[in-house]
Amino acid sequence: MITLIKNIDILTMDENNTLYKNGCILIEDSKIAFIGNQSELNMDNSYDKIEDGKGKLAMPGFINTHTHVAMTLFRGYANDLPLMQWLSQKIWPMEDKLIEEDIYWLSLLAIAEMLRGGVTTFADMYMFMEETALAVEHSGVRGVLARGLQGPDENSQRRLEENRRLWENWQGRGDGRIQVMVGPHAVYTCEPSYLLEAMELAKELDVGIHIHLSETRQEVDNCIEKYGKSPVRHLYDLGLLDGHVLAAHCVHLSQEDLDILKEKDVKVAHCPASNLKLGSGIAPISDMIKTGITVSLGTDGAASNNNLSIMKEMALAALISKGVEEEPTLIPATLALRMATVNGAKALGLQKEIGSLSPCNKADIILLDVHAPHYYPHTDWINHLVYSGHSSDVHSVWVNGKKLMDNRELLTIDLEQVYGEVNKIYKRIMGE
Amino acid sequence: MITLIKNIDILTMDENNTLYKNGCILIEDSKIAFIGNQSELNMDNSYDKIEDGKGKLAMPGFINTHTHVAMTLFRGYANDLPLMQWLSQKIWPMEDKLIEEDIYWLSLLAIAEMLRGGVTTFADMYMFMEETALAVEHSGVRGVLARGLQGPDENSQRRLEENRRLWENWQGRGDGRIQVMVGPHAVYTCEPSYLLEAMELAKELDVGIHIHLSETRQEVDNCIEKYGKSPVRHLYDLGLLDGHVLAAHCVHLSQEDLDILKEKDVKVAHCPASNLKLGSGIAPISDMIKTGITVSLGTDGAASNNNLSIMKEMALAALISKGVEEEPTLIPATLALRMATVNGAKALGLQKEIGSLSPCNKADIILLDVHAPHYYPHTDWINHLVYSGHSSDVHSVWVNGKKLMDNRELLTIDLEQVYGEVNKIYKRIMGE
Repeated sequence: MITLIKNIDILTMDENNTLYKNGCILIEDSKIAFIGNQSELNMDNSYDKIEDGKGKLAMPGFINTHTHVAMTLFRGYANDLPLMQWLSQKIWPMEDKLIEEDIYWLSLLAIAEMLRGGVTTFADMYMFMEETALAVEHSGVRGVLARGLQGPDENSQRRLEENRRLWENWQGRGDGRIQVMVGPHAVYTCEPSYLLEAMELAKELDVGIHIHLSETRQEVDNCIEKYGKSPVRHLYDLGLLDGHVLAAHCVHLSQEDLDILKEKDVKVAHCPASNLKLGSGIAPISDMIKTGITVSLGTDGAASNNNLSIMKEMALAALISKGVEEEPTLIPATLALRMATVNGAKALGLQKEIGSLSPCNKADIILLDVHAPHYYPHTDWINHLVYSGHSSDVHSVWVNGKKLMDNRELLTIDLEQVYGEVNKIYKRIMGE
Repeated sequence: MITLIKNIDILTMDENNTLYKNGCILIEDSKIAFIGNQSELNMDNSYDKIEDGKGKLAMPGFINTHTHVAMTLFRGYANDLPLMQWLSQKIWPMEDKLIEEDIYWLSLLAIAEMLRGGVTTFADMYMFMEETALAVEHSGVRGVLARGLQGPDENSQRRLEENRRLWENWQGRGDGRIQVMVGPHAVYTCEPSYLLEAMELAKELDVGIHIHLSETRQEVDNCIEKYGKSPVRHLYDLGLLDGHVLAAHCVHLSQEDLDILKEKDVKVAHCPASNLKLGSGIAPISDMIKTGITVSLGTDGAASNNNLSIMKEMALAALISKGVEEEPTLIPATLALRMATVNGAKALGLQKEIGSLSPCNKADIILLDVHAPHYYPHTDWINHLVYSGHSSDVHSVWVNGKKLMDNRELLTIDLEQVYGEVNKIYKRIMGE
């Protein structure tokens, strides 16, 4: 299957942020076969499909490096509470009522929302993850999945076993779209012995670790009280940062923490909306950038955001540091857009496949409709996208070379069926 | 002309934030004739038009209390610079090249963007304002317009005269949709003598004043150096706060400033995106709210935002205080939504006509499409709107009882013509 997208401006997000004006992209099976100026491509070739990109802008799909997709159930439920109170009094009691099949439909709802916002890859940590894997397989999106692990308690060995089984059953499935990580939840929900078990599992499976880190002031204070050191230093001393680590949040960091994250090349999933909404604080991303740390973007779950739009996170990432530090030159638009694309790929160890539009990369491509008032005049695509764009500007989506959305219509997900199933789950669990 | 909108959930934003489930709205000419439960309305009446609201949510149109609509020309031009440098080196030299007719098309582009985002009323301050008035008249939106005034200099009397003429020619025009204010730009661009002249004009015309106030730390520091007091205190001592005053920004306020704003019932136009993007800082809106000050929302111009979405401002207003003060109970969603609607009406002195859906109010109504993934499950409309909504969810718009957008199609603006004219202006002025 060969598709040509022609007459289109392209933000490649490659190393040089190359922009093609009126260029073209050739998709061959799952990969990008050609990208560049139209004149360089032999247009005599026969293509299975030709798409006219006039009035559109092409770019790599967005990468959401931290979420809990099945938490769409809790969207708009219990707002305006601090993290610990929100988790222990509101979310956890409801989560106990979830059954395996629920996770499939709740994940599909999230995937539908993300595809409509141009997110082509997401990293998730939750429970019943094989159901999320099934939703990834069916929908055609790309997913990096981890079983959330807490312990030790009476179920903690089962959870580790589920993470292993997730890997055995799903690693590389969906033509390579599904990858598995190990998901120790956080230093405040995992004892050191259990963190070490998770680390051993990650080593054995040769996969990365996805963990929440230094999300709240309370987490840091409690860790210092309990272990005499910060969560970052605690993980460092345990050796947990020696492999590939994706650390979500990183809101409260000392200079030593920053140096450790740099030294160990820990990838940060910056989740500004969730951090703001839960009152967790504002992550020092301009310090992280200065220190040389890879910063990507995550939405966190719909329970604490309440949406799954990486374009919203991108705007927040670009805006907040400027305002807080009263310095408008911080986090320029290009950097924010790199956080949402290439840096996301690096955070997941997938930078050789996705995150930028380059020949031989996977064809994870989105087209945005820029023939709209908020994109006029056509001055500067990157600034327009970051500061003026909406998720709903996304017109078409390809993942792994397969078209998943066309003119905002999802091609692999039956939205009405998803809404119906989600409504049933909501009524059963929330008692309405 | 009588239109019935039936089968629709309604957020009235009245004093009690009344919500009707599956209610109906009757629009008679320019006003709301009935709003409430379907059973209470005699459905035997004959209507000119019946709209089925299934899957939609009705609410008052958003009110943008501070913008410079014609600055759409500068969207995406000269980003990541501090306010003073951005104004003096980038914006002002380009503004000198603008001619009268440009303002009409640039205003229409902004009005198109705002209507598509559910903004039904905006307050503006700029030059060639009669062209903006013409765009308001033609498009059907509601506008509160002020001539931006700086002085004294060789043109400052002409500017005052233009503000007077704007009032003479346009006050109450467009079936009352156009209102005029007097627009002294700021304490750093107006000498006290000129501020007093502007104040006298406002008194004479019996209209309010629209002014930039305490936007940057530099403005405050310079004012203290020059006059020995803060900009707020400076205006207070001049008597300028004695009438109706709409003060944009108010980022840097002392406790005395807050007390003065409360005492004088000054209305604040909070512009979070612009304040963040220009590195001006973060306005203390939770302190303002505690003090009892009316806080509304503005986008500022597209040059410094770079969009005109009040829904984005609403989300920022709800999120930022929570994060900065690490207190998730600040600025709940309902308050943010009131800032975007009723408080906007109060800020413009129009609370008896717009800002909430109540019988006899003007029919400035928007319908949002909530049959979309990011609104499921249907738990809580206000939280969904504020934290999860997009401007593009706006499906239909009425202003003054007249339908201006249907299923996202603008009924009074020819977008292709606007794009063409804006491109021409852009090429002429920016030399591309």
